Amino acid sequence: MNLRATLKVLGGLLLFLGVMLLTPIPFSLYYREGNLADFLVPSALSLAVGGTLFRLYRSENEISYREGFGIVTLGWIVYAAFGALPYLMSGMIANPVDAFFESMSGFTTTGATVLTDFELPAKSILFWRATTHWIGGMGIIVLSLAILPFLGVGGMQIFEAEVPGPTADRLSPKIQTTAKVLWGVYFLFTFSEVLLLMVGGMNFHEAVCHAFATMATGGFSTEAASVGAYGSRFIHWVIVLFMLLAGINFSLHFHALRGRVRGYWRSEEFRFYMLVLAAAFLIIFFLNRPQYASTHGNACDSAFQVVSIATTTGFGTADYEGWHVLSQYILVVLMFLGGCAGSTGGGMKNVRVLLLIKHAFVQVFRLIHPRGVRSLKLDHKPVPDEVMQSILGFFALYIGIFLVASMLMAALGLDLVTAGASVVACLSNIGPGLGEVGPTDHYAHVPLLGKIILTTCMLLGRLELFTVLVLFFPSFWRK
Amino acid sequence: MNLRATLKVLGGLLLFLGVMLLTPIPFSLYYREGNLADFLVPSALSLAVGGTLFRLYRSENEISYREGFGIVTLGWIVYAAFGALPYLMSGMIANPVDAFFESMSGFTTTGATVLTDFELPAKSILFWRATTHWIGGMGIIVLSLAILPFLGVGGMQIFEAEVPGPTADRLSPKIQTTAKVLWGVYFLFTFSEVLLLMVGGMNFHEAVCHAFATMATGGFSTEAASVGAYGSRFIHWVIVLFMLLAGINFSLHFHALRGRVRGYWRSEEFRFYMLVLAAAFLIIFFLNRPQYASTHGNACDSAFQVVSIATTTGFGTADYEGWHVLSQYILVVLMFLGGCAGSTGGGMKNVRVLLLIKHAFVQVFRLIHPRGVRSLKLDHKPVPDEVMQSILGFFALYIGIFLVASMLMAALGLDLVTAGASVVACLSNIGPGLGEVGPTDHYAHVPLLGKIILTTCMLLGRLELFTVLVLFFPSFWRK
Repeated sequence: MNLRATLKVLGGLLLFLGVMLLTPIPFSLYYREGNLADFLVPSALSLAVGGTLFRLYRSENEISYREGFGIVTLGWIVYAAFGALPYLMSGMIANPVDAFFESMSGFTTTGATVLTDFELPAKSILFWRATTHWIGGMGIIVLSLAILPFLGVGGMQIFEAEVPGPTADRLSPKIQTTAKVLWGVYFLFTFSEVLLLMVGGMNFHEAVCHAFATMATGGFSTEAASVGAYGSRFIHWVIVLFMLLAGINFSLHFHALRGRVRGYWRSEEFRFYMLVLAAAFLIIFFLNRPQYASTHGNACDSAFQVVSIATTTGFGTADYEGWHVLSQYILVVLMFLGGCAGSTGGGMKNVRVLLLIKHAFVQVFRLIHPRGVRSLKLDHKPVPDEVMQSILGFFALYIGIFLVASMLMAALGLDLVTAGASVVACLSNIGPGLGEVGPTDHYAHVPLLGKIILTTCMLLGRLELFTVLVLFFPSFWRK
Repeated sequence: MNLRATLKVLGGLLLFLGVMLLTPIPFSLYYREGNLADFLVPSALSLAVGGTLFRLYRSENEISYREGFGIVTLGWIVYAAFGALPYLMSGMIANPVDAFFESMSGFTTTGATVLTDFELPAKSILFWRATTHWIGGMGIIVLSLAILPFLGVGGMQIFEAEVPGPTADRLSPKIQTTAKVLWGVYFLFTFSEVLLLMVGGMNFHEAVCHAFATMATGGFSTEAASVGAYGSRFIHWVIVLFMLLAGINFSLHFHALRGRVRGYWRSEEFRFYMLVLAAAFLIIFFLNRPQYASTHGNACDSAFQVVSIATTTGFGTADYEGWHVLSQYILVVLMFLGGCAGSTGGGMKNVRVLLLIKHAFVQVFRLIHPRGVRSLKLDHKPVPDEVMQSILGFFALYIGIFLVASMLMAALGLDLVTAGASVVACLSNIGPGLGEVGPTDHYAHVPLLGKIILTTCMLLGRLELFTVLVLFFPSFWRK
């Protein structure tokens, strides 16, 4: 790996973070919180380190796939580290590991929190917490590509290392244009949601924080009771709608906004995603009937929890740990499944699972017709063997990492359900799990070592394993 | 599928079962149990139905892979049905679904039982229960191939549909010879174990029953407390040794018996299997220390439970539900893993998991060296793409079936842990699981519909999914 080129780009990314760290200041001033230093000091630090790195190394055009992996993984770690400073500075979180956990949970749009007292943090800090979601949702690289010119020729390599899904859609021959388009759609949806949430009765601060967390499929709320703190069913449905949108491939949104709305239904992944969500909703709605007096209340809560978990957002309006065991089981399966490729959602992604199911059927088919050729297709196009092999490798790695990390959590003394649920909730970037990290709990009580394991899982999940894992191969570092 | 050829072979298999049903009679006579009818009637029924089918249809040499799948799946169902008759006749089990569950659990070497009162059944019935294990362990087809000449040319097709593992080893160009060799090794080990168990203090009946259940990796015991009912650590260690042997590819045993003992260590699957077992043992032994006064007692119980679960036998000498959460977690992972290909053990098989891990590494490697070619090898030989794809399909199906079946069990009202554990315990042909189907529990309390689901899982697991699943494809039945 070319370390110089990597450090230069990291410097550029840090400069950008330095500017972003100033965005909570208007809230700080408006609410007269008197905590400007909590943002100015981290910002100055980011700018200083970033500027030094950026100036120290000469521009090199040698950014290959290798540097792409390094830049993305290190970039996310650096962002989480510097992004944690306002939590430490303000005293909201005392322990650096906890602050790093919260920050990584923000950028990776996991939404797992160590915060127990929601009266403590200033509104400006809560805004920063939501902003980490928003930046991480579409990706720090995609954002930089859209705004900053400095990445130059290596853009595509870095872009592919960050964008979720087995293949990155290029909406334009120029990668910068693709990034701008994606951020444009993202911005438009976020803006619309802010307006609708304010119509529903939220103030501007609450609306922005929740819209950021929704569109990023993050899950940090400004309230301890999450979205459940707002009694308005209108607000719940607005968030259901935007979580649903955030879990769909943004290329489809882009095409739809340009008039090709039928593109949604032409996408097999979209149809699969909708089918799974509808089936999960119907079963859970049916099983929930004895617990709800109101059909509308049941429909809203069932839809909210299904969409929140499936899109890996992690907002809550009801405690699903009190639901039927089958409902909980379905939610756990949805945790692994996650959103669509090219969305802001985490998990294994619908398209991967869909292709796995197809692959399994083709294998059974081959036994019946040993000489018959039946190739695997998606959207009427054959799926290249390499893509399929990569997906199968991803599946094996996902399960493997889940098992190893769960065993480590169990070794730390967590019970069987909590150990497994905390890992999948972080690996799939959801937030709430089951057991002691359920929808009404938090992660503050997890042992420090466990938090480090979970933080690693968040990063592995957000960057879809491979981008992070290559860094552990010695041959990656050889010239 | 050629139904006539299939029915003719099924008739032959039933004739053979009719003879096998007479084997408990010496025990019945020796213990003067006066229950000859419990075996004579089922035997006569098997012989009558089998003889009719066998005579009704003319011999046809058209046995292809398709008939192979049909014969094996239907053969196992028919065996479980007729094999259940002694339980019903004797009144040991009153409900036909329960009897079918117990019988399928026997033939598939699962060892999950609905028996709650071990004082009730006659010794001859307990012997029949152990015999179903022994027949099913090496396979009803392999047994027929070894003893009966009637299968003729189609033998290889049927053999491959039954023998566990991604590829069937042919120890001889003649499939009948291979089957004879496998049964020879199986018989030799069983005989040796009977002798050693008698040296350890068991009577002949107990020794035969436990040896049958060990070598088949079954798990039915003659005692409610399983092997734990015998205080002798010698007996425990003998059973550990033979469970270990039963979980190894029998081709390796065959070669070892012919002098090539180093073949064991040359097999990558064997090394992987030993490494996993050793690691699991060491961790569990370490975690168990506070619970044991005696190091030998801890070593014996830890080794016993690890080997019993990993080989999918399911015997018990200790209640692992009282152990550290990590120990339980490791045991659950071992449940999925199972024995080696070509052994009598169930589960996904070590070689498949080993190849999955290798595949995942190759995928990461390809990202670092996009132009580098690194093929997947096993025992220094490249693994054909089709084998790898079939394994990946198997993995996806295994997880898929596990999830669907677990959800169905949860729908029936079982708790999260019991629902999942009962399915993996049956799908991997182990027997005891966790929760309400733990090592000190039984399956009597599972709802009838749940028993049907679990019985299906046993068959799917024993025949390694594909052989059963093809029958559900409409195109399988077309000419």
